[in-house]
Amino acid sequence: MSGSAAYNTLVTTFTKLYRYQHLQMIAGWDQAAMMPSKGNDARGAAMAELAVLMHNTLTAPHLNGALTAAKAEVTDGVERASLREMERQWQVANLLPADLVEAKSLAGSRCEHAWRTQRKANDWQGFLVNFREVVKYTRQEATLLAEATGLSKYDALVAKYEPGMNGATIERMFNELKQWLPGLIKQVQAKQATETVLAPTGVFPVEQQRALGLEVMGLLGFDFEAGRLDVSTHPFCGGVAEDVRITTRYREDDFVQAMMGIVHETGHARYEQRLPREWVHLPLGQARSMGVHESQSLSFEMQLGRSAAFLQLIAPLVKKHLGDQPAFAPDNLGKIYTRVKPDFIRVDADELTYPAHIILRFEIERALIEGEIEPDDVPRIWDEKMLAYLGVDTRGNYQNGCMQDIHWTDGAYGYFPSYTLGAMYAAQYFATLRKLYPDLDQRIARGDLAPIFTWFEQNIWSQASRWETPELIERATGEPLSATHFERHLRQRYLGEG
Amino acid sequence: MSGSAAYNTLVTTFTKLYRYQHLQMIAGWDQAAMMPSKGNDARGAAMAELAVLMHNTLTAPHLNGALTAAKAEVTDGVERASLREMERQWQVANLLPADLVEAKSLAGSRCEHAWRTQRKANDWQGFLVNFREVVKYTRQEATLLAEATGLSKYDALVAKYEPGMNGATIERMFNELKQWLPGLIKQVQAKQATETVLAPTGVFPVEQQRALGLEVMGLLGFDFEAGRLDVSTHPFCGGVAEDVRITTRYREDDFVQAMMGIVHETGHARYEQRLPREWVHLPLGQARSMGVHESQSLSFEMQLGRSAAFLQLIAPLVKKHLGDQPAFAPDNLGKIYTRVKPDFIRVDADELTYPAHIILRFEIERALIEGEIEPDDVPRIWDEKMLAYLGVDTRGNYQNGCMQDIHWTDGAYGYFPSYTLGAMYAAQYFATLRKLYPDLDQRIARGDLAPIFTWFEQNIWSQASRWETPELIERATGEPLSATHFERHLRQRYLGEG
Repeated sequence: MSGSAAYNTLVTTFTKLYRYQHLQMIAGWDQAAMMPSKGNDARGAAMAELAVLMHNTLTAPHLNGALTAAKAEVTDGVERASLREMERQWQVANLLPADLVEAKSLAGSRCEHAWRTQRKANDWQGFLVNFREVVKYTRQEATLLAEATGLSKYDALVAKYEPGMNGATIERMFNELKQWLPGLIKQVQAKQATETVLAPTGVFPVEQQRALGLEVMGLLGFDFEAGRLDVSTHPFCGGVAEDVRITTRYREDDFVQAMMGIVHETGHARYEQRLPREWVHLPLGQARSMGVHESQSLSFEMQLGRSAAFLQLIAPLVKKHLGDQPAFAPDNLGKIYTRVKPDFIRVDADELTYPAHIILRFEIERALIEGEIEPDDVPRIWDEKMLAYLGVDTRGNYQNGCMQDIHWTDGAYGYFPSYTLGAMYAAQYFATLRKLYPDLDQRIARGDLAPIFTWFEQNIWSQASRWETPELIERATGEPLSATHFERHLRQRYLGEG
Repeated sequence: MSGSAAYNTLVTTFTKLYRYQHLQMIAGWDQAAMMPSKGNDARGAAMAELAVLMHNTLTAPHLNGALTAAKAEVTDGVERASLREMERQWQVANLLPADLVEAKSLAGSRCEHAWRTQRKANDWQGFLVNFREVVKYTRQEATLLAEATGLSKYDALVAKYEPGMNGATIERMFNELKQWLPGLIKQVQAKQATETVLAPTGVFPVEQQRALGLEVMGLLGFDFEAGRLDVSTHPFCGGVAEDVRITTRYREDDFVQAMMGIVHETGHARYEQRLPREWVHLPLGQARSMGVHESQSLSFEMQLGRSAAFLQLIAPLVKKHLGDQPAFAPDNLGKIYTRVKPDFIRVDADELTYPAHIILRFEIERALIEGEIEPDDVPRIWDEKMLAYLGVDTRGNYQNGCMQDIHWTDGAYGYFPSYTLGAMYAAQYFATLRKLYPDLDQRIARGDLAPIFTWFEQNIWSQASRWETPELIERATGEPLSATHFERHLRQRYLGEG
């Protein structure tokens, strides 16, 4: 118990919210992984009722006074951080008028629902009608959040996903990337053009892929008494910190994606599983941000999972579960998992071209929210940037161009940078780790992953939301976020430099 | 919308409760079928928070006035029935003081928790300490409910599980059973002593048993777009009407129990799946009672599932999934599924001896609640009745005697009769069906189960809680509940009479 009565009141309310959120997360996981189709309407109604309840709990009039009083009373550093995170959640629920929240939510649902057919039909003009509405309400949201927080409009949206980050910093980072990334992609493509890659062939039964996935999860420290692996159309990491549910999807003609997908989700999962238990019921105890969450999955997938050392470690497991074939040689697995090919679709992109997809989205959505461009302008700018950054021609191809993502349909502007920020954080973590353990790759290859997990435990997982992201990164790595580590990692992996 | 504003207010509140209950049921199913062990504390806290919320919703002060006003305003028959069912739920939450509810709940948890080890240790004296407390609080509950409802103490508890039923009627029915049941059991044992039954042998892999179970469920009309089959330690039917989750447990050396367990749970499931959708959000739209629910599972398991005709129908499926062996001949399956053997344990009892287990529990718990006997008297009476009804000696064997069930540990007095009432309802339904379809067995044998489902749809499933149980039974079968049909069914099945 704190010495501040007001703070204790807040703890009571946020503990209640944590319990409601538990039900929300489990019902959401079930909806994606277990629920039969006819259960959907009742589930939707129940989850909407729960959302109303959570909103009402977080907008109860007494909380405003309790926050003000607690801020005056609390002096302890952890409690002050706890208050900061409570206030962050409180603001999201309280700063916006209910009619705007509802209008944006309805516009988003309408746009997303129609998009599912419009995308298939390449129907940009049809999409544009709903898209304009979503942008309109998101701009209103951004304006109100900007007024309340003193940030710019776009930054106010970014802060929802990456507290402490802003458009100017992202722009600076991404501009650095833009200087060397397109050239690097071309270089790597030229290099890989002469390489031979054996494609795995055969049927890989789901049960065997699952057994392989479970063994790899075990290697990565997943706690099976506090989580599960299941199947869903779109893989995700859900559930609650005490009971983390990851999913994947299997194709019997290809295990490559499912296996690395499991590594990725296990990165998310371990972060959740190792969040500090003494704060688990408070905003303070939750994962820092979308970007930091992605930095965990990308640490596992990109830094560790696709490394030559890790593939050397798990190649015998692949053989054990899926039988032997030349394509399963560690060296060949390495080639498979580092193949670079500029293409239309972000979610299918490789490690090297992925940032280009993100940079163009960041530039477009920032301009959209700041009112510098209009929804009608998007395809033209998209086409230009895709050609410039990736050499891919998307003219007239809306479905594989600016209509490919769900984020802009349902109003999640400010979210896209998280993906590449996560990749950059991950590269910086591993640069630090490599300084601490010059023999890191040898350790990985022989299955000694403890140094990695211990470092994450101490520097990221146990810190939860104790610090805003820039401070978390600086405390963990000894320096502010820098694009250098990401560049060095990519040059090392893809060109063998350094 | 009703013409009564008060009634509409109630509908709003009960719709909210229905949505909360959805979350409760899904979280409860997940806890039993999916949740890893370390998730349990957080789940318990979340479900307790939800229970508090539901209790607060149902005890909101305005509901009392709304119920009174609506009862004065509503004239429509369906709405009056709807009000009756709302009031029933309201009473359960409002008639008892919070401190008694809490004291009983704590005493029940303590007793049940200790019982799990005391039972194994055959520790009656240790058990007795907690058991006395549970009986004390249950008597207080019964006294208050009796005062409020005008029923006797035991009847007030029975009404929680079987509205409209009472101890006097149950006593009359059970006294009838007692006249012929012990003799019938002996006769059947004598007859079966000379029969040869082939035991199935081999290993029956879980996946094959599951495939068989799914096919049998399909035959029984289970809607897989509105439900699932999973595994849990204690099989149950859970979920919600729109999304029914049944479970079973498999043993690789024995498929007999799992298969019939699936048939049993499918009976529960179809009742839920076919409850009328227009009432699904109201107490009116919920299953009538524990006894009627059990009548559905026992209709499927006992009346249909263990019949010679049904076993003839599914014997080819058993062979298809588990391979062929002489034990899978329909006639032999019939012998397996109708084997009679008086024994200690209720949950393992066969169709014929099961009612004896229930009758003795009813007689003891009724006397306990009415204050005619004390907890200390239970073993002595148990031993006497087990010897009289089943010829089984339980002296000193508490763990397989009066300490075998969970019901008395956590205060669920008045529940036991539901099992045998359900068996009697089921026999009466099928007597009606056989009058309508004299060729019912031939139809079953050739897979024409539609007449059965149509009859249940019209007479039971679609009626939900429209009528109290006695009226439901009389409307469905044209006469009040009578033990005759049950006796005739048993004599026909086990002695070939009639």
